[in-house]
Amino acid sequence: MVRINQNYLKLQGSYLFSTIAKKVAAYSKENPEVEIIRLGIGDVTQPIVPAVIEALHGAVDEMGAKETFRGYAPDLGYEFLRNTIAKNDYEKRGCDITPEEIFVSDGAKSDCANIQEIFDADCSIAVCDPVYPVYVDSNVMAGRAGEYDTQTGQYNKVIYMPCTKENGFVPELPREVPDLIYLCFPNNPTGTVIHKAQLQDWVDYARKNGSIILYDSAYEAFITEDDVPHSIYECEGARECAIEFRSFSKTAGFTGLRLGYTVIPKDLKAGGEDVWPLWARRHGTKYNGAPYIIQRAGEAVYSEAGQEQVHEQIAWYLGNAKIISEGLAAAGFEVYGGKNAPYVWMSVPKGLTSWEFFDQLLTKAGVVGTPGSGFGPHGEGYLRLSSFGDREATRKAIERIQKMF
Amino acid sequence: MVRINQNYLKLQGSYLFSTIAKKVAAYSKENPEVEIIRLGIGDVTQPIVPAVIEALHGAVDEMGAKETFRGYAPDLGYEFLRNTIAKNDYEKRGCDITPEEIFVSDGAKSDCANIQEIFDADCSIAVCDPVYPVYVDSNVMAGRAGEYDTQTGQYNKVIYMPCTKENGFVPELPREVPDLIYLCFPNNPTGTVIHKAQLQDWVDYARKNGSIILYDSAYEAFITEDDVPHSIYECEGARECAIEFRSFSKTAGFTGLRLGYTVIPKDLKAGGEDVWPLWARRHGTKYNGAPYIIQRAGEAVYSEAGQEQVHEQIAWYLGNAKIISEGLAAAGFEVYGGKNAPYVWMSVPKGLTSWEFFDQLLTKAGVVGTPGSGFGPHGEGYLRLSSFGDREATRKAIERIQKMF
Repeated sequence: MVRINQNYLKLQGSYLFSTIAKKVAAYSKENPEVEIIRLGIGDVTQPIVPAVIEALHGAVDEMGAKETFRGYAPDLGYEFLRNTIAKNDYEKRGCDITPEEIFVSDGAKSDCANIQEIFDADCSIAVCDPVYPVYVDSNVMAGRAGEYDTQTGQYNKVIYMPCTKENGFVPELPREVPDLIYLCFPNNPTGTVIHKAQLQDWVDYARKNGSIILYDSAYEAFITEDDVPHSIYECEGARECAIEFRSFSKTAGFTGLRLGYTVIPKDLKAGGEDVWPLWARRHGTKYNGAPYIIQRAGEAVYSEAGQEQVHEQIAWYLGNAKIISEGLAAAGFEVYGGKNAPYVWMSVPKGLTSWEFFDQLLTKAGVVGTPGSGFGPHGEGYLRLSSFGDREATRKAIERIQKMF
Repeated sequence: MVRINQNYLKLQGSYLFSTIAKKVAAYSKENPEVEIIRLGIGDVTQPIVPAVIEALHGAVDEMGAKETFRGYAPDLGYEFLRNTIAKNDYEKRGCDITPEEIFVSDGAKSDCANIQEIFDADCSIAVCDPVYPVYVDSNVMAGRAGEYDTQTGQYNKVIYMPCTKENGFVPELPREVPDLIYLCFPNNPTGTVIHKAQLQDWVDYARKNGSIILYDSAYEAFITEDDVPHSIYECEGARECAIEFRSFSKTAGFTGLRLGYTVIPKDLKAGGEDVWPLWARRHGTKYNGAPYIIQRAGEAVYSEAGQEQVHEQIAWYLGNAKIISEGLAAAGFEVYGGKNAPYVWMSVPKGLTSWEFFDQLLTKAGVVGTPGSGFGPHGEGYLRLSSFGDREATRKAIERIQKMF
């Protein structure tokens, strides 16, 4: 008799953003007159920039003509895109990453979720707390997380690394050495960053202990300050201990187009075995490549016009983040992030839990945030607001929140 | 110290089609004057039909305007596409499948490879032999396949179901009851079909034994004969024992656009647990949806113009299959398939292995096929040819093969 993967039963509730979507839909159905402002899920709202739209149209036409039609994409992604990425995202920053070490995919979420499967089922994992839920949930599904403890709100085999205002939201090096370490900077959900010397400490730690860092750098395009690394490969020795995930979702508004990539340096080993061929094999067996037209769209992001247009868009979103941060600070909230990231991490009023405050914001201000505790126990007492909304809507949301207090 | 997933080391060689691509590239490099005709990998060559190109352009424009821009897609896929699929692919054939039971994805390959992970690691699996390699390889990666036996060319925990000319390439019901049964009809690689009464026997067997059938119906659009089921849900009781995979790759030439879907009926249970929520959870956690513009392209396939155009394209490919089948039969080969599928399964000359004949075809005729043994031990002695090539090239390939004998 066939049986399900019992690990799935250990997952807690449904996926955070699905839960929020359902709550908002239910409220909206009962209160159709309320104009809801969504600053919850990190979904962009600005249209795809003209240089990319032009590339998309061009590639669509190619698909419609026999001479230029393209079928299955190469396993790792088209060379034109991998070359462009290697040059612009790495060579220009002094990082030694070759096109062959870049695996094009449909987004960082899929890759972050799937990467764990090339490692042993008994590997221990460490995550920041609060954390983007996909890292933990994908390991729960694989049986690495152990049992869920309703008291602590944590899985008993996961090493949680608290990120608090006391440590500037950068975790301390864990005493119990993890095999796999998930780090995400600029951070989701806190919007805070790690400085280069701090990240170098992590790289040194991983190399010394034979750990691998899974570095989610999906928000690097939002970095505005110096001394904040865009890539973990800016650190010495990272080629031997780190995998990096990148996304076009936030860099160029591709949440609806789906494009990302993962870097696996050929120097990376796990227990003496090369890691690169494993991911190559997984890619070739379980995935069929991002659509050709989307890969052309990704290439266009790096064109002169594309760069200018996406930088302008990011600056615009950071303008929203400023409105959120300054507005909330003026209303007496503690606020973090928002300078080098699209997220603002705000403290919730004393005496309320994150979910209680989420409900208050929804029902009293018609504003959707993401409850900090949804990202882990140390997110309790905070709420994440996203700067990806409309300018006027963002302003209105902050005014509504200000009026509540 | 971090360790790799040791199951990956049990994978045999590299992925079949990568191996072929490398062999052909090497030969082509050494013999640049030879015009290679590729009838190996099942990749289409005809351009995307006009109705779909038009829909793509329209959707691209939507992505470029603020009012019509779309970010993250709904977890299961856009309703407009799921409704269209439910109506056209199921309701019209008398199958009771609701839009909510349809999960839109980037292709049947990914889904076929990923589906196993929602089941217990100890579930036994059965596959046809010969078989599309993804079913086995994804289970090897998950540790379900056991050890590879170089003598038999098989994994010791997989139940192989021989498909031979004696049984008409439809396997017998296995005596040892498998938990998960992979079936693919019209079949890849043999191009042969199952009749409705035969498929009903499989459904009855699965229900009686508490097994689940994983039914890959990627080639259903090529069915020309009556009494050949397009969907397993044409059989009574299949809602309780079957998952179905569908692809736009072969139906509408989407190999480079990437779109497919998986059907999980809400009645399906595994060991008493509902299966639908598991796949929904996996989809929400590890995947972010097919691009909006591609989902609109998929919708356009079902428009009146779209249907007319893709049917014409399929008929054209079947014309190639006829040229291959008749040409090879005239040259004295045994040939199967090609009537309700894009593949022709030909016997190789006595005394040669599939790979030896593959090499002969490549070096003496400049034709690329796929060695039958690459699909499993019972594929030995056969070669798969695909009808997805150019008309003239296909004709030329067959003439070249005829001249060899």
